Amino acid sequence: MTKAELKQRVNAAIDRRAEEIIGLGEQIRKTPELGFKEVKTARLVEETFGKLGLAAKSGLALTGVRADVPGRAGDGPSFALLGELDALVVTGHPVADPQTGAAHACGHNAQVAGLLGAAMGLLDGQAFDHLAGRVVFFAVPAEEYGDVEWRVAQARAGKLEFLGGKPELLRLGHFDDVDLSMMIHMTSRPEDGKTGVPASNNGCIVKTVRYVGKASHAGGAPHMGVNALYAAHIGLAAVNAIRETFRDEDTIRVHPIITHGGSQVNVIPGEVRLETYVRGRTVEAILDANKKVDRAFRAGALALGAKVEIETLPGYMPMTCDATMARMYRDNMVPVVGEEHYRQIGHRTGSTDMGDLSMVMPVLHPYMGGATGSGHGADYQIVDQQLAYLGTAKALAAMAIDLLGDGAAGARQVLKAAKPPMTREQYLAFQRGIARREVYEG
Amino acid sequence: MTKAELKQRVNAAIDRRAEEIIGLGEQIRKTPELGFKEVKTARLVEETFGKLGLAAKSGLALTGVRADVPGRAGDGPSFALLGELDALVVTGHPVADPQTGAAHACGHNAQVAGLLGAAMGLLDGQAFDHLAGRVVFFAVPAEEYGDVEWRVAQARAGKLEFLGGKPELLRLGHFDDVDLSMMIHMTSRPEDGKTGVPASNNGCIVKTVRYVGKASHAGGAPHMGVNALYAAHIGLAAVNAIRETFRDEDTIRVHPIITHGGSQVNVIPGEVRLETYVRGRTVEAILDANKKVDRAFRAGALALGAKVEIETLPGYMPMTCDATMARMYRDNMVPVVGEEHYRQIGHRTGSTDMGDLSMVMPVLHPYMGGATGSGHGADYQIVDQQLAYLGTAKALAAMAIDLLGDGAAGARQVLKAAKPPMTREQYLAFQRGIARREVYEG
Amino acid sequence: MTKAELKQRVNAAIDRRAEEIIGLGEQIRKTPELGFKEVKTARLVEETFGKLGLAAKSGLALTGVRADVPGRAGDGPSFALLGELDALVVTGHPVADPQTGAAHACGHNAQVAGLLGAAMGLLDGQAFDHLAGRVVFFAVPAEEYGDVEWRVAQARAGKLEFLGGKPELLRLGHFDDVDLSMMIHMTSRPEDGKTGVPASNNGCIVKTVRYVGKASHAGGAPHMGVNALYAAHIGLAAVNAIRETFRDEDTIRVHPIITHGGSQVNVIPGEVRLETYVRGRTVEAILDANKKVDRAFRAGALALGAKVEIETLPGYMPMTCDATMARMYRDNMVPVVGEEHYRQIGHRTGSTDMGDLSMVMPVLHPYMGGATGSGHGADYQIVDQQLAYLGTAKALAAMAIDLLGDGAAGARQVLKAAKPPMTREQYLAFQRGIARREVYEG
Amino acid sequence: MTKAELKQRVNAAIDRRAEEIIGLGEQIRKTPELGFKEVKTARLVEETFGKLGLAAKSGLALTGVRADVPGRAGDGPSFALLGELDALVVTGHPVADPQTGAAHACGHNAQVAGLLGAAMGLLDGQAFDHLAGRVVFFAVPAEEYGDVEWRVAQARAGKLEFLGGKPELLRLGHFDDVDLSMMIHMTSRPEDGKTGVPASNNGCIVKTVRYVGKASHAGGAPHMGVNALYAAHIGLAAVNAIRETFRDEDTIRVHPIITHGGSQVNVIPGEVRLETYVRGRTVEAILDANKKVDRAFRAGALALGAKVEIETLPGYMPMTCDATMARMYRDNMVPVVGEEHYRQIGHRTGSTDMGDLSMVMPVLHPYMGGATGSGHGADYQIVDQQLAYLGTAKALAAMAIDLLGDGAAGARQVLKAAKPPMTREQYLAFQRGIARREVYEG
Repeated sequence: MTKAELKQRVNAAIDRRAEEIIGLGEQIRKTPELGFKEVKTARLVEETFGKLGLAAKSGLALTGVRADVPGRAGDGPSFALLGELDALVVTGHPVADPQTGAAHACGHNAQVAGLLGAAMGLLDGQAFDHLAGRVVFFAVPAEEYGDVEWRVAQARAGKLEFLGGKPELLRLGHFDDVDLSMMIHMTSRPEDGKTGVPASNNGCIVKTVRYVGKASHAGGAPHMGVNALYAAHIGLAAVNAIRETFRDEDTIRVHPIITHGGSQVNVIPGEVRLETYVRGRTVEAILDANKKVDRAFRAGALALGAKVEIETLPGYMPMTCDATMARMYRDNMVPVVGEEHYRQIGHRTGSTDMGDLSMVMPVLHPYMGGATGSGHGADYQIVDQQLAYLGTAKALAAMAIDLLGDGAAGARQVLKAAKPPMTREQYLAFQRGIARREVYEG
Repeated sequence: MTKAELKQRVNAAIDRRAEEIIGLGEQIRKTPELGFKEVKTARLVEETFGKLGLAAKSGLALTGVRADVPGRAGDGPSFALLGELDALVVTGHPVADPQTGAAHACGHNAQVAGLLGAAMGLLDGQAFDHLAGRVVFFAVPAEEYGDVEWRVAQARAGKLEFLGGKPELLRLGHFDDVDLSMMIHMTSRPEDGKTGVPASNNGCIVKTVRYVGKASHAGGAPHMGVNALYAAHIGLAAVNAIRETFRDEDTIRVHPIITHGGSQVNVIPGEVRLETYVRGRTVEAILDANKKVDRAFRAGALALGAKVEIETLPGYMPMTCDATMARMYRDNMVPVVGEEHYRQIGHRTGSTDMGDLSMVMPVLHPYMGGATGSGHGADYQIVDQQLAYLGTAKALAAMAIDLLGDGAAGARQVLKAAKPPMTREQYLAFQRGIARREVYEG
Repeated sequence: MTKAELKQRVNAAIDRRAEEIIGLGEQIRKTPELGFKEVKTARLVEETFGKLGLAAKSGLALTGVRADVPGRAGDGPSFALLGELDALVVTGHPVADPQTGAAHACGHNAQVAGLLGAAMGLLDGQAFDHLAGRVVFFAVPAEEYGDVEWRVAQARAGKLEFLGGKPELLRLGHFDDVDLSMMIHMTSRPEDGKTGVPASNNGCIVKTVRYVGKASHAGGAPHMGVNALYAAHIGLAAVNAIRETFRDEDTIRVHPIITHGGSQVNVIPGEVRLETYVRGRTVEAILDANKKVDRAFRAGALALGAKVEIETLPGYMPMTCDATMARMYRDNMVPVVGEEHYRQIGHRTGSTDMGDLSMVMPVLHPYMGGATGSGHGADYQIVDQQLAYLGTAKALAAMAIDLLGDGAAGARQVLKAAKPPMTREQYLAFQRGIARREVYEG
Repeated sequence: MTKAELKQRVNAAIDRRAEEIIGLGEQIRKTPELGFKEVKTARLVEETFGKLGLAAKSGLALTGVRADVPGRAGDGPSFALLGELDALVVTGHPVADPQTGAAHACGHNAQVAGLLGAAMGLLDGQAFDHLAGRVVFFAVPAEEYGDVEWRVAQARAGKLEFLGGKPELLRLGHFDDVDLSMMIHMTSRPEDGKTGVPASNNGCIVKTVRYVGKASHAGGAPHMGVNALYAAHIGLAAVNAIRETFRDEDTIRVHPIITHGGSQVNVIPGEVRLETYVRGRTVEAILDANKKVDRAFRAGALALGAKVEIETLPGYMPMTCDATMARMYRDNMVPVVGEEHYRQIGHRTGSTDMGDLSMVMPVLHPYMGGATGSGHGADYQIVDQQLAYLGTAKALAAMAIDLLGDGAAGARQVLKAAKPPMTREQYLAFQRGIARREVYEG
C-alpha cells in the first residue's frame, strides 16, 4: 500500500468521524481553561483516548495527557503530534468563562480536536500496520504565557519550575523519548492563506520591573518624596531611546506595560511596577537586547535616586521549523488546498514554546486557516470547521504517514539532516541561566 | 463678667468633661468612615448634641450634622465652629477599617471631639448668657478628596453635585445664614509648634485623563497598534517640561499617577488612564497652570495619533485665613501654649475645602499639635490627647467668646474688615464653570 | 569575436594603462571637493576624455561631465556608466581639504578612476566595433546629501532645483536618452566580500525642523519664556515613542540631530533647530513614517505652546537593482574574484540617488571591495588599488560588452524584463510633491 | 555741617558736572567690552581718576581699577563703591561691537558713570573733610558670566583662577582692606519703581556636560552607534523629572542648553554637549539641587551605555543685602524719588558676583531705574540719563556720607550688626571645593 493510498484511507476514516471530531472541538471551545489548569479539557482528552483503546498517561506537567501508539512495521523514531490545551484571558470574549475570563481566542481547541481526529483516523484507518517507530499523541498544557502570579506561586510551592507547558514537560523528561514533533496552529490572518509553514518565530524573555521610591504628600511635601512613577517614566524613555539600535533582522520586541502606576493621586508614588517581554529572532539577539533593556530600566532608578528590582524569567526559545518536514508538509498540503492557498510564511514575531522543543529536536509548526478576527481578540472565532478541525486532523495524520511510513524513511531523513542547537541538558541549563533578580540602587 | 473670666469658666467645664471628650475622640478614631459615608460618626454627633439638649439637623450633604445655639445677649452674627467627620484610605494603618481601608490618619476625629467639647464647655459654662448672635456647631462631611468613582456615581444619581463636603453644603444653602466660621486642624509637623495659623493654603483642580489608542498583538503586530501608554508617557514628559514655567510664588503642584497602564503585557495598550491635581496659591495661578497641563496632555495624544479625554473637576479653592481672626486667635493662644510654641505659619501647599468657605466669608483654620507621624501616613497617631482633644475644644470655645462676647463686637470687627472675594452665587458659578470634559483627537 | 575574447582584450588594455588609472584615482583622492562644487575633478575628467578623443559635455547639473561613444555594430540602447565626483565633510580625515573639510571617505575617487579606466579599456581595446547602441560615460555630481544650506541657497538662486546630483540631472533631461545605467560603489565592509550586488537600498526624505518659542531670562523670568529646547525634547521623545510601529521589513531610519540647541545658557531657548532623514525600503513606508514623524514633531510644539516649522525636502528614492543585470554581473565577476568572494547582498539601509535612476530605468549598483575603515569615517582608506581602481574599470567595461555586444541582445533582454515603476514625468512630479513646508502653532 | 548739608553740596557738585558724567556713561555705552577684556573702559576710568588727582591701581584681576581716598575726619572703616566694567554678547543689539557682539544691555555703563560721578561729587564737594575712614572707588571687571571658553583658557594659562570679576579680586586680596561695599545696578522692570533694594539674589553653580557615545552611519549601522544625543535627551528628561522636588522657597533654576547636538544628520551623534546653571536662594539648596542634577545627567549616560563628563565650576554666591545699609539707603532715597517710587524688592532669582562679596562683608546692591527693554535683550536702553547716570552718582555719594560721616558712626553700626557667613579664607576654600570634574561610564 502506498503512502497516498494510506492517507486516503485515513482521511476517509476522519470524514466518517467528522461530527464527533467537530463536536470535541466545539465542546472544548465552550470549556476554556487557563494554562496548567486545563482539568476538564485534559479529562476529555483522556476519555477520548480511552474510547479509542489507548492507555494514556495524564497529569504530565500538571495537566498534560500522552498516549503512545507503536507502529507495527518495525522499529523507528518516535514522532509526537501535539495539541495545546489552554485558553487565555480575553476581556469581552463572548464565549469566555465567567469566572476566569478565559476564552479560546487562539484556536487551541481546534488543535486538540485535530490531535484526537488524527488519532481516530490513523487507528480507524489501520495505519499503524504500515508505520515504523511510534506516534506519540500529546495534549500539552500552558502555551499562553500569562496568569504569571499564580504560576510563580506554583513554582514557589514546588509544583512547577518553568512557567510554560513544553519547557516544563521537557524538564520532566516527557520528551526524552520523542525524536521529532509537530503541531498545527490556527491562523486568522488572511495573508497566511489556508495553510503554510513559517520559517521561524521570535523567542522571548519575560521581565517584571519594580521601582521603589518614597511616598510623600504630593501637595505638602513633594520634595520629601522619590517619585517611582517618574523613575519608571525615565525607564520607558530610555527603552525607547535604544530602539534604533535594534537590528531589523533581529525583529526585537520590547513592550512594557505599567501594572501599578501609583496608589493615590495626592501621594507621590512610592512604588511602580511594570511588565515586559524582550523578544527576538535569535537567542543572541534577545540576550543583547535584554542587556540594553536592563540598563535602560536602571537609568530610571538612577535618574530619580530610586531603587529598581528587575526580575528576569525564562520565556520561550526562538523557533525554527525543520526544513525537511516543511517540504514534506508542503507536498502534502498543496494538493489539498491548492497552490494558491499554500503559503511559505517568513519569520513571525510572536512567540511559542514550540520554540523550546525546536532547540532539542526537529519540529514543524504550520498554520491552518479557518478562523477570523484578531488573535487573542474578543472577535476571534473559528468559521470553517472543516478546515480547522478536520483539515488539521488530516494534516497531522498525513505527516505521521509520511514520516513513519516506508520503514520511517522520512523521519530518518529528517533526523539525519537536522542539527538541533542544544541537547536537553544544555537547554535546561540555558533557561535556568536566564532567571535572575537584580536590585539596583539609583 | 469679662471675656477672660468667661473663658476660665468654660475651660473649667471642659476639664470636668475631659474623660467624656477624650472618649468621643477615641471612639471616632476607632470608627473611621469615608467621606459622605460617615454614618456612625454622624449619629454619634447627633446623639451627643441630643444629650446636651440641642436639636440638630442631620443628613446635610448626606451626613452633615448641625446644631445652632443662639446667644442670649442680643442679636449678632452667626459664627460656625466646624469639625470634619471623615477619614481616608491609608494602606497599612493599624486602626483602619478592614472593609474600607479608612483610617483617621489626618486627625479629623480630634476635630469632632473638639467641636463637641466646645459645645459642652460653652453650654455647661453658661456662656450663651453673655454672647450675642449665634453659635453654629457643625459637623461636616467629606473634606478628603478621594473615593472619586463612588462620588461621581452619587453625582450621576443626583445625590451630590460637588465632590467635597463644604462645597456641597454651600451649594445646598447650609452656610447661607453663617457669617464667619472656623475649624482647627491637627498637625504632626514639629515645625508647626503647638498651635498656629497659616496665612493661606493652595487650592486645587482635579483631573482624570484617559488616553485611547488601539490595542494590538505586541509581538506580532505592534505596527497595527496605537500605544496609549506611550501617549501617556509623552503627556507626563510634557508636564515635566513645563514645570520651569511655574512661578515659585504660585506654589503649583501637578502630580499625576497612572491608574491603568495597560491590560496585558503582550498587547500594545489601547487604553491608559491617569489622575492628577493642579494646585496653586491663587485661582489665577491654578487656571493658568491647568491650561498648560491640558495642552501637555493633548501633546501625548498628538504624538502617537491617539485620543485623549480630559475630565476637569472642581476641587477646592485656595484658602486665606482672616487676619483679624488670626490676631484674636494668637492673643488667645500665646498665653496658653507660650510664645515659643506659637507659630505664624506661612503659606501651605496642601488643599482643604475650608478654602471654599474662605471665598465667601471670613474663616480661620489654625493647626493644633498633639499628633506625630506623617499626615495621611500609616504611622500617624495622636500622642497628646490633652492638646488634641481638650486644647481644640478650649480654643474653639475661646474664639466663640472673643467673637460673640461684648455684643459680638469682635465678630462685627472681623466682618467689617473682611472682603470675601466672592458671593455665594459667584462661588457656585465659578466652581460649576471649572467642570469640563474635553476630547482631543491627536 | 566572442564577448569573452573582447573582455580579455579590453582588460589587457586596462592593465596597460594601470599606472595612469591608479594615478587618476589617487589624484582625485587628494583633491576632494564637495557636491556640485567638484570643479577640479570635473575638469580632470573632461581633460581625460579629451585625451581619449572624446568630446564631452560639461557643467551638467553644475559640474557633471558626459561623453557618449556610439557602438559601430548597429543601433541599440544607450547604456550609461557612472562615476560620482563628490567627497564629503569628514572631521579629522588625514586627506581632507583644509578649507572645506571634504575628504574622499566614501571612495568616489575610485568610481571616477574606474569610469575613466573603462573608457580607456573599451577604446584602446576597440570594443566599439563590436557594440551596438551607445555607451555614455558620465561623471555625475553630488551623491552625498549634505552642505544643505549652500545648496538651498543655490536653489533659491535658481541654479538648482533638487539637492542631489542624479535627481537634478534627471530634471534637466540629461538621462532622457539613456536606457539603462550602472555604477560601482566601493565597500569597506568585510562581509561584502570582494564584490557583490545588493538587492535594494533604502530611500529617504530629508527634513529640517525649527522650533520657535520665546526667549527669556532663565534665572529671573523662566515663566515668561517658551522653551524651544524642551519642545524639541518632546519631539524627540515622540519620535522614539513611535519607533515600535515601524515594521522590521520597512527598515525605517529616523535619526535627528540638533543643529542649534539654545544660544546662551542663561536664556531660555527661543529657537531650536533639528535635521533628520526619514528612510525606508519603499516609498509607501517612507511616506507613512514621515507622516508619523511630522505628527511627533508637532506634539513637541503643542506640549510647550511653541511653534514648529517643518521643512520636508525630497531626498533619494529607494533603489532596486535590476535582476537581469545582477545575474550578468555575477556571471562576469565570479570567475574573476572566485565564488567565495562574491556576495549576493540583501537590502541595504543607506541611501543613494542611484535609487532615483532606478525609478525610471533598470540600474545596477554593485559594491567593490578594496577599502577599509568605516564608510564616511576618518579611517576610511583604499588599500587594494588593483581591485578598487582597475577591478572597477574592468567590471564596468565587461558589463558594457555583455549588454551591448551581440547586437545589444543583453541590453534588450534587460529592458524587456524591466518595469521601472515611474516615467520621468511621474518621478519629477513625485519628488516635487514631497517638498512642503508646514508651520504648526502648538 | 550736617550730613544733609554735605549731601546737598555734593549733589550740587554732581549737577555741575552733569554733562561730563553723562558723557562718560555714553562713551562707555558705545565702547562695549567683554569681561576681563574691558581695556578701553578701564583706561577711561583710570584717566578720569587721574584728572581728579587720584592715583589708581589698575590691571587688578586683569582690568580692575581702584582709587582710594582717605577721609580727613579720622580713622574708620573702608567703604568701597563699585562700578562694573563689562558688557555682554547680545545678538542684534543696535550698539553692539561689530567684532565681539558685546553690548551694554545690562546698564553697567551707568554704574561706571555713577561711580565716577560720585567721586567727582565727593571730591568737588570737599566731603572728605567730614568723612572718617576711607572711600574706595573701584571699577571691577567681568560680572557677566560668559565667554567661558576664553576664560577657561586664561585660567589654564594661569592668568585667572575664578571666572568672575569679584571672586577673582577677592582671591587676589584686593578686597582684604575693604570693610563694606555697595554698587547700584540698573533696572528696566517697571515693577522695581525708580529705585529699591532687593532682599537677596540667587547664587549659582555653572556646569558643562559632555556625553560621549559612538558615532556610526545612521542609515547603515545605527546598531553600531551609541547615540550621545539620546543620552543627553534622557538627561534632560531626568532633570525635568526631579523639578517637583525643588522647594518653592529655594527658587531653584536649572536651565540647560545643548551647545552641540550632533555633527551630521546621517551620523549617529557620538558627542553631545550641554551647559547649565544650577541656581538657588541658599548655598545648601544649590548644592542639594546640584547633586540631583548630576545624578540626572548620569542617568542619561547609563540609559544608552554612553559616557558623561560633568564639569562643575564655581559660579556666584547667593547675595543678601545688609539690612542696616538697606534702611539707610531707603532713608536717603525716599525723599529723592518719593515713597511711591521706592520699592522694597523681595528675593530675585538672577545671580550676581556681588553675592560673593556679601559672603564676606556687608554689601548693598540697590536697583536704579531709567532703563527700558528687557535685561540682556536687544531692546535694552537707558532712557532717563538723569536718573541712571546722575541719580546713581548721587545715591552712591550719599551712602558714603551716611556711612563715613559723623566719625563713620553709620559704617560702624553696620559692621557691628552684620555677621558675614564666611571669612575670606572660608569663601575661597568653598568656591575651590565646588570645582570638580566627574567622568561617569554608563
